[in-house]
Amino acid sequence: MLTTKGFAAIAAKEKLQPFSFERRDVGPQDILITISHCGICHSDIHQARDEWGISLFPMVPGHEIVGTVSQVGAAVTAFKIGDRAGVGCFVDSCRTCGACREGLEQYCNGGTVWTYSGQDKEGRITQGGYSTQIVVDQNYVLRIPDSLSLPGAAPLLCAGITTYSPLRQWGVGRYHKLAVVGLGGLGHMAVKIARALGTEVTVFSTSESKRADAKRLGAANFAVSSDPQTFTKLQGHFHYVLDTVSAPHDYNTYLNLLKTDGTMILVGAPETPTPVQAFSLIFKRRRLAGSLIGGIKETQEMLDFCAQHQIESDVEVIPIQQVNEAYERVLRGDVRYRFVIDMASLKH
Amino acid sequence: MLTTKGFAAIAAKEKLQPFSFERRDVGPQDILITISHCGICHSDIHQARDEWGISLFPMVPGHEIVGTVSQVGAAVTAFKIGDRAGVGCFVDSCRTCGACREGLEQYCNGGTVWTYSGQDKEGRITQGGYSTQIVVDQNYVLRIPDSLSLPGAAPLLCAGITTYSPLRQWGVGRYHKLAVVGLGGLGHMAVKIARALGTEVTVFSTSESKRADAKRLGAANFAVSSDPQTFTKLQGHFHYVLDTVSAPHDYNTYLNLLKTDGTMILVGAPETPTPVQAFSLIFKRRRLAGSLIGGIKETQEMLDFCAQHQIESDVEVIPIQQVNEAYERVLRGDVRYRFVIDMASLKH
Repeated sequence: MLTTKGFAAIAAKEKLQPFSFERRDVGPQDILITISHCGICHSDIHQARDEWGISLFPMVPGHEIVGTVSQVGAAVTAFKIGDRAGVGCFVDSCRTCGACREGLEQYCNGGTVWTYSGQDKEGRITQGGYSTQIVVDQNYVLRIPDSLSLPGAAPLLCAGITTYSPLRQWGVGRYHKLAVVGLGGLGHMAVKIARALGTEVTVFSTSESKRADAKRLGAANFAVSSDPQTFTKLQGHFHYVLDTVSAPHDYNTYLNLLKTDGTMILVGAPETPTPVQAFSLIFKRRRLAGSLIGGIKETQEMLDFCAQHQIESDVEVIPIQQVNEAYERVLRGDVRYRFVIDMASLKH
Repeated sequence: MLTTKGFAAIAAKEKLQPFSFERRDVGPQDILITISHCGICHSDIHQARDEWGISLFPMVPGHEIVGTVSQVGAAVTAFKIGDRAGVGCFVDSCRTCGACREGLEQYCNGGTVWTYSGQDKEGRITQGGYSTQIVVDQNYVLRIPDSLSLPGAAPLLCAGITTYSPLRQWGVGRYHKLAVVGLGGLGHMAVKIARALGTEVTVFSTSESKRADAKRLGAANFAVSSDPQTFTKLQGHFHYVLDTVSAPHDYNTYLNLLKTDGTMILVGAPETPTPVQAFSLIFKRRRLAGSLIGGIKETQEMLDFCAQHQIESDVEVIPIQQVNEAYERVLRGDVRYRFVIDMASLKH
């Protein structure tokens, strides 16, 4: 077993603290990654506080993991020592169901093995990337293109693929008008990726203060969602709405911004159900869809796309000792646009 | 002007009563139809009682209209006197917007002119099919195939197209598992049409008493929605759910019946918004969609499809003097499966 240092929530709502634990030995198909950086995703906070009611403790959060391969199993062919490598939201799946065979491991019928607060096939609780190293089967490890910085690439493993996948799935591209609701970790990636796809992006934000950033990130337009006139003026204007907000808000006002056959895609998940007016969907034959991260193949495609278009996340790099403060700042929306932990700080 | 007899609601919630009114003269593009039958749609009741808050009075309801052409305008080429003809939920639209050009007149951006409780381009209130005759532009009149009976064809103009259109739009066909929620006017048409498309249909009904009918209509399976085990057992089972229920009910339990990438389509519209749990859509990348009747071209396609497959609505034909009693019976679900008014009764 490989003794590993990390930061963990020992129980729900406790502050994260230094924690030592064991990783499995490197098996024939496994890769040992020395973690250089790990992003802080809003769902890390939900999970560490057991706000979805499915958390397993003690919990080392983190599923935006990048680093360098430091050991490979005997049967590993895809990576060699020294390669840059990444791990996203899951580390295994059944590999035999229809979803897995289609490269949609995130929808595995047998049960996706989540990177942390999950259970692997031997029943061990998985532990995430707020740690020095991780052992993952080569089939669930991503290549990080050389042209991307490691801290700027880390959030692509969740925020990047969460927004890339639905945009590709629904064929969002040139000559489409897209509303991106919320300009946070997910939203800022959506703007960059959609812009690279040739899409005309309008950012909806509660805060006028993000107007300049929206434009800088590549948005053509900016709309303040607290102004009711916004919704009258832009009714029927968009082909797609990508909703990244996980706080409760009114879906119907955004549905009404869609043209006939338009689609609103949810990637943020409010804890409580949201009232949907059937007429918002029936008139104009609109659609409300959800999307969850992406499969391994599509995640690699996204990383290569980002390298090609020089897209990274806007990050604020912090030492792990500031993780609890960073959580508070995430909850206040006080980060532009993703915290990334420099794991070198763990060695001190 | 053409003096016309009908039955009307003089004000919201009043009983329907005999009513005489004027139709416009037959213009160059117009067709005068002598109405033989008109179906009673649940939305007639909503509208007559102003439950959607958009009603115009006095109101002659009815948008499942069939009859015979008795006069044609000078420029009419598509119909001749004596032809069987039908009129559905709308009688005009702007004809120039993108939706109209695509044959989606029901989503007209300029404003679809509804068959009753609407306003035509001259600002006159439109009056529906609970009447002896109607004048409609030839471009908005359907041909009723000879092999269909007139009373059995009438409900196709709303209930038929409302269910046919989304099934075709979403490509529902062979090797698909479809759940039809609710076995009423819409639901019974959905079962017949989906069966003809080669789809494996499961009917969900609150009432065990409809099991035999569901099978007779062509459903492969029947599920009682009041039994919670139904929803555990059939989780992830369906490619599509077609929800025809307009009473408030839980969408999330039905969303969870869908496979990955499955779609639930709403054609019933509860008056109040329905809570949707984002996770129901995000996990398994599901979709919640709406659909509203169909365009003229697709409605004709549906009528021809029904003729080809010998599909008619199951109807109970009544004289118009029983319309108020029929409304009460519709509200109690006491009709299998559509009331159709025999307009010969109006002449007495």
